[in-house]
Amino acid sequence: MTKESQDIVTRVQRTIGESPAALHEPDLSEYEVELAVDCIRSSFISTVSPYVNRFEATLAATLGSPNVLATNSGTSALQLALLVLGVRPGDEVLCTALSFAASANAIAYCGATPHFVDVEDETFGMCPDALKASLASMHVSQDGTLTNPTTGATVRAVLVVHIFGQPCQIDALQALAGSYGLLLIEDAAEALGSQVDGRSAGTIGAIGCLSFNGNKIATTGAGGALVTNNSSFAEQARHLASLAKAPHLWHYRHTEVGFNYRMPGLNAAVGCAQLERLDAFLAQKRALHLAYSESFQDCEYGKLHGEASGTSSNFWLNTLVLDGSISAQLDTILQDLHNSGLGARPVWQLLSNLPQFARAPRGDLSTAVDLSRRIVNLPSGMGLSARLSTRNDPLADS
Amino acid sequence: MTKESQDIVTRVQRTIGESPAALHEPDLSEYEVELAVDCIRSSFISTVSPYVNRFEATLAATLGSPNVLATNSGTSALQLALLVLGVRPGDEVLCTALSFAASANAIAYCGATPHFVDVEDETFGMCPDALKASLASMHVSQDGTLTNPTTGATVRAVLVVHIFGQPCQIDALQALAGSYGLLLIEDAAEALGSQVDGRSAGTIGAIGCLSFNGNKIATTGAGGALVTNNSSFAEQARHLASLAKAPHLWHYRHTEVGFNYRMPGLNAAVGCAQLERLDAFLAQKRALHLAYSESFQDCEYGKLHGEASGTSSNFWLNTLVLDGSISAQLDTILQDLHNSGLGARPVWQLLSNLPQFARAPRGDLSTAVDLSRRIVNLPSGMGLSARLSTRNDPLADS
Repeated sequence: MTKESQDIVTRVQRTIGESPAALHEPDLSEYEVELAVDCIRSSFISTVSPYVNRFEATLAATLGSPNVLATNSGTSALQLALLVLGVRPGDEVLCTALSFAASANAIAYCGATPHFVDVEDETFGMCPDALKASLASMHVSQDGTLTNPTTGATVRAVLVVHIFGQPCQIDALQALAGSYGLLLIEDAAEALGSQVDGRSAGTIGAIGCLSFNGNKIATTGAGGALVTNNSSFAEQARHLASLAKAPHLWHYRHTEVGFNYRMPGLNAAVGCAQLERLDAFLAQKRALHLAYSESFQDCEYGKLHGEASGTSSNFWLNTLVLDGSISAQLDTILQDLHNSGLGARPVWQLLSNLPQFARAPRGDLSTAVDLSRRIVNLPSGMGLSARLSTRNDPLADS
Repeated sequence: MTKESQDIVTRVQRTIGESPAALHEPDLSEYEVELAVDCIRSSFISTVSPYVNRFEATLAATLGSPNVLATNSGTSALQLALLVLGVRPGDEVLCTALSFAASANAIAYCGATPHFVDVEDETFGMCPDALKASLASMHVSQDGTLTNPTTGATVRAVLVVHIFGQPCQIDALQALAGSYGLLLIEDAAEALGSQVDGRSAGTIGAIGCLSFNGNKIATTGAGGALVTNNSSFAEQARHLASLAKAPHLWHYRHTEVGFNYRMPGLNAAVGCAQLERLDAFLAQKRALHLAYSESFQDCEYGKLHGEASGTSSNFWLNTLVLDGSISAQLDTILQDLHNSGLGARPVWQLLSNLPQFARAPRGDLSTAVDLSRRIVNLPSGMGLSARLSTRNDPLADS
């Protein structure tokens, strides 16, 4: 172990103790058991289930959004959002390269191409200056259509992501998109409970998408949700997610190519319990983050990523940003953390570097490239906050 | 009510009694509750769960297939099967119009087009003579590629369906496909437990797909499975269904556009219990079918659809095929059955008539058109067999 690596491992162990710790871990209680059992005994475990309605209503109330559609994954929600905004084969969607594969995959499912825009240091989200430059380079037709002059493709939408729960500069980004007549999709897969000036992440863009995958702050095993203030968008998404079936008691008429993307009742039942416990989860996540912040306060090899002003993060993942001088040690540090039983992760490989998107259009991505060499996500499972009270006092130790 | 309609309603009620009856109804016991509770308490409810492995092993043993991949829907399994067999944008896939929308949707998701081939009366599945005629009309290149001379598209695969649990003539169909170098996908979504000469439906084609949707004989809420004897196909499907992620303890490398299509552990837990109870379900379904057969034995307005020789149906849905002379009454009969509390259904609108497939290539579809005007599916829920012992004796009543 290098001295830098040793220092980082020690600071993590000082925060959460020396027992092994996973990167993610859900908190499932007897309340989740109770609702799931009730759902199974009702026999309505499929996508037609009162628990799906209850989950959607609970999430709508949690977020303060009038329209919520529960889906079988966050990726499904993203694909539906893109389709509803009219993304079609050959189109381009402006998005970032520093994100989970689902963002770009959903674009590819529509036959469209991601057009990568750089991120910023403060939020890891899309950089407003980079978006501005990208938009300014496009050709605007008389009918307002935006065209990439290099590829000839129509630019149809902007997709931004709240990385690790930290909201991006969504108001600035949405204003820029809007000034070119583009609507913005908010990928809030990692940001349930995060806020921007008191508004819930996911409710600010034209359409927001959430994930309830097993690694998220609240889980349904697998699942997602599409959220929008626009009831016409909501109706279209619900129709597409329900196999585009025209309502009738017995006839089967499908008005277009639809999808089998609704969340099953069994998963929604667990989700109902999780959502009711969300405030407690957020408090635990925040406590863990504060403990890590404290432990890394005087670390000379890296900085714990904090909240951007005006925003409230759900602290889904705690992120150590290595000092540029030791970025060459990234793999060693990850290996040493793993050898110490600590489930740490780098950020995802940049989407712009994956073979399937290697030829996708892009602007300058230097901040994304730089961050991808310096990010270390630290164990952030729900159970870890319980270890905080029993840990050694960091001041006494230091 | 017309006298024909009255007669049909009376025969259904004579079979299952006069209480309301749904078309489908799952049978969920305390065993399903027990496994789901165990899964939630283990905290492994996501797609990474021992219950997913157990579900796959149980299904493999049930079917006698070496490779099973659990998916989040039958539609997902179909899409993966098509991709693994090399179906790409612009291709055509030979399939039938008398099927649920998922069959053709999965083809559309690949950017390919369904090419409709007619069905036969005996099984409702693809007609070998129609497939033979369709294949004979194709152009065969020197490299063996099959091209539709009318559209210029490559014909890449054949997709056959076991409708309502009744196996189609899969051996004849597969031999025909094979003689043109085409592989066959077996959509066994409705046919878990059905057999052809002692082999399980789903295990006979190059790839088979099953569904565990809430309306199926065994359910996981939502879910499906891909089954194949070809371990390379299985590996490719598993990779695609797991976001095409290259295995590594912490790196995220996705080798191609993948999908988030794995079944979550929570759903798999319920499925494990369902599969263990499958033999009992099959016996109940058969008892219900025999009771309907008896009740409709001397009906002059329609005939209960039975098993084709050499096959064993799971009798997922019981089907009354109306006599051609009263097919104009189809909607009246469905309305009267519904008014009597009996959840009956016609067959799905022919896929060839849906707007999204209206321009898809096709052969003569006269048998499909004829059947679509005469099929009435009768209430076939799992709980109905319990009503059989208490029903009036049909002979005493007649």
